Amino acid sequence: MQYPEPIAKLIDSYMHLPGIGRKTATRLAFYTVDMNKTDVKNFADALTSTKNDLRFCSICGNITETDPCEICSDPTRDQSKIMVVEQSKDVMTMEKMKDYNGLYHVLHGVLSPIEGKGPEDINISSLIKRLQKNEEVKEVIIATNATPEGEATAMYLAKLIKPAGIKVTRLSHGLSVGSDIEYADEMTLSKAVSGRTEM
Amino acid sequence: MQYPEPIAKLIDSYMHLPGIGRKTATRLAFYTVDMNKTDVKNFADALTSTKNDLRFCSICGNITETDPCEICSDPTRDQSKIMVVEQSKDVMTMEKMKDYNGLYHVLHGVLSPIEGKGPEDINISSLIKRLQKNEEVKEVIIATNATPEGEATAMYLAKLIKPAGIKVTRLSHGLSVGSDIEYADEMTLSKAVSGRTEM
Repeated sequence: MQYPEPIAKLIDSYMHLPGIGRKTATRLAFYTVDMNKTDVKNFADALTSTKNDLRFCSICGNITETDPCEICSDPTRDQSKIMVVEQSKDVMTMEKMKDYNGLYHVLHGVLSPIEGKGPEDINISSLIKRLQKNEEVKEVIIATNATPEGEATAMYLAKLIKPAGIKVTRLSHGLSVGSDIEYADEMTLSKAVSGRTEM
Repeated sequence: MQYPEPIAKLIDSYMHLPGIGRKTATRLAFYTVDMNKTDVKNFADALTSTKNDLRFCSICGNITETDPCEICSDPTRDQSKIMVVEQSKDVMTMEKMKDYNGLYHVLHGVLSPIEGKGPEDINISSLIKRLQKNEEVKEVIIATNATPEGEATAMYLAKLIKPAGIKVTRLSHGLSVGSDIEYADEMTLSKAVSGRTEM
């Protein structure tokens, strides 16, 4: 006996999600059967709406309901700074900090020779065009992750943008706030020492 | 800045699932944005169909697309045995074993005084009616989990059914196949010793 078809299909769909194997997918599917009808309907609607009502901002590449996005169309934001991030998610994380009032640019990836991702596969050309068009931009803050790919992408962008006379900065590396030196990895420690600041 | 509304709603829906907190839900929601449109549509359809196309079998209580379910309406199955399980999921698990050819009865829960679940809250009365109507039934196999609640439910059912002259059996407890005595817990070991069989 097989699972009833709707359940089999739902298990299959759950398995498409990252980090969810057959066992968890089965558990989630049976949980869904017991959920109340409104919750399941809302879930299905949210999925559909995610695909139908969201697009990428034609200026910065961020996920948005309106084009240009909320941030790009906000005149109170500091138009002289653009922060370059890997993913839309990173924009939300930065915004939670409430410390940064400039603009963003979402790359949708990083340079990765291993995965065969070159400069033309990520959202770089639109960044360059944006910098050529807006003379107001004085600083590009590169906020790619502190991974080898993130670093390589940062280096690549710096080389590309600096000649235009725009200041290029990178987020600082060092110890996490509240962390213990004992548990810091060597790379982080080395960055924390070389990037030490005067007190 | 908040997440765009479709994403916020989807995060909320993912958080309704068991074992998924805000961080995982956010990761899944952004993953969904990058999924291809057909996969997302299939996912949404599977969710809707799970609520719309499934019902509980009026005989055994199992989840099914047709009523009575595949198993209850199959004349080749052994009508003299009913296996009582806690959840529909357990029926599928038993069926995978391919060793059992009798019928099932799904309780949709167990007796649990702590959670305030009494006999009237689970699917017991329909089991009793079923036994009264079908004189063919010779054995009820109680396959509730080996938890305190599962055991209590088994005891309760045995007391209820035995007086009618129907044989009541319980799945055996003991060491898992392939397991190491060193790692077995004491309760399991004690059950394995008391339930030892002659070679």
